[in-house]
Amino acid sequence: MARAPADPDLAHADLAHADLAHADAATVRAAIRAGRYARHTAGLAAGVLQCNLAILPERLALDFMRFCQRNPRPCPLVAVSDTGDAMLRTLGRDIDARSDAPRYNIYRDGALAAQARDIGDLWRDDLVTFALGCSFTFERALIAAGVPMRHVERDQTVPMYRTTLQTAPAGPFGGGMVVSMRPVRTGDLERVRALCARFPLAHGAPVHAGDPAALGIADLARPDWGDATPVRDGEIAVFWACGVTPQNAILRAKPPLAITHAPGHMLISDVPEDADSPILTF
Amino acid sequence: MARAPADPDLAHADLAHADLAHADAATVRAAIRAGRYARHTAGLAAGVLQCNLAILPERLALDFMRFCQRNPRPCPLVAVSDTGDAMLRTLGRDIDARSDAPRYNIYRDGALAAQARDIGDLWRDDLVTFALGCSFTFERALIAAGVPMRHVERDQTVPMYRTTLQTAPAGPFGGGMVVSMRPVRTGDLERVRALCARFPLAHGAPVHAGDPAALGIADLARPDWGDATPVRDGEIAVFWACGVTPQNAILRAKPPLAITHAPGHMLISDVPEDADSPILTF
Repeated sequence: MARAPADPDLAHADLAHADLAHADAATVRAAIRAGRYARHTAGLAAGVLQCNLAILPERLALDFMRFCQRNPRPCPLVAVSDTGDAMLRTLGRDIDARSDAPRYNIYRDGALAAQARDIGDLWRDDLVTFALGCSFTFERALIAAGVPMRHVERDQTVPMYRTTLQTAPAGPFGGGMVVSMRPVRTGDLERVRALCARFPLAHGAPVHAGDPAALGIADLARPDWGDATPVRDGEIAVFWACGVTPQNAILRAKPPLAITHAPGHMLISDVPEDADSPILTF
Repeated sequence: MARAPADPDLAHADLAHADLAHADAATVRAAIRAGRYARHTAGLAAGVLQCNLAILPERLALDFMRFCQRNPRPCPLVAVSDTGDAMLRTLGRDIDARSDAPRYNIYRDGALAAQARDIGDLWRDDLVTFALGCSFTFERALIAAGVPMRHVERDQTVPMYRTTLQTAPAGPFGGGMVVSMRPVRTGDLERVRALCARFPLAHGAPVHAGDPAALGIADLARPDWGDATPVRDGEIAVFWACGVTPQNAILRAKPPLAITHAPGHMLISDVPEDADSPILTF
């Protein structure tokens, strides 16, 4: 029990990341659902799409879905539940939006009100769950192709920045695009672009490479979220549309209730990450 | 005026297909909006996405959008308007869902009630327009690659069939998938697959090649829509998910009002047909 932290919410979370490093998606999800794993999911369940989650009242669902459709780079829509149905039936056989992410953020009127490992007590008949692709997919592909990811090597969080790029708005959802930055050897840039373009469900090709000022970023050393990551000689700063963009759009819309995964604590699907379509049928 | 038919609705439609064969998208749309062209749009405005249209009351829009998300092959979502806004603002600078398709079908309670060249008089503040990609895009690409399209050579409508493939339902929308069939030389099959896969916004790769019985099609010579097209020695019948699928799903849902383009009479967008994303921003 040495691994169990003082936080009573984590009392049963006796599994460490290393314990699940080689487990398949169903095994990892079962551990999360049982409350035995509550950490970040980077590198787990290799080969399947991991997802950003956004859970909203149905009253806002059509506008949010339009926002995702209009902004496919930051908001690659992978699944949308039926209203009131907590199961994400096109992502796998048994995927429950209430319990299968390791940690949730609960927002009320646009402010973070609480975190939780399970949101079953908050579930309502008018909630709709959106699952959006995430960067873990292309990072894994890049590492496998011999493109190092410095924040992974340093065991840090990728640096993220607000930009002056504007999203295409829909109803109350809009605002600036958030990007993540990864240094890439200059000679690898075209290979990185081509590889990432193969994963449109995971933010696709980078949106920019080079001068951060072109995106309105004043200082790479001061990210808005995550850890500063140095760009060394012979490298170029490469920027991808980031899944924080829809979270920001939701905060800006100030819905009475919105629930997301906690950053890095993603929902693991059964969809192969190189699938043409994210829709599984049973 | 020899071209103007007796139909008074076509009194001003003095332009023939050949008159617009080399015109760009904006010119074709202007002719359609002015009532000067009211025929099919196959082969016009080469290089841009043409779209199936579905216009529905907002009450059904979230379910229809979920239906499209869950069935990306038959229902590749290209644009969704704001509620009550007749303009498709992500498809081009000046694209009006009320006037810019050459011909519309108007359905009431699931039955065809009328056709029209303009639906301005039916527009309501609660209507939402959906634009879905169409097969003209990949047909053009195949012809350009030297793969003949027999129904085009014969100046006929592609044969379409109901199948036993089921769509993933959403709310009242569901039912079987409709496919179109084009004969392909057996040796061209892999090339056709690869080429079409590059157009996910235009139905993507075929869903089946070979035995029609595998899709529940009893007799290729008796299509449910369109003209029978022979499959000759050395050829294989190739089947693509078809844009009639969402039309069928709408009829099945029997909405009080639904408006679509008339088959073959598509909305011409400004989106390049090989675009990664169908979203234009201005």
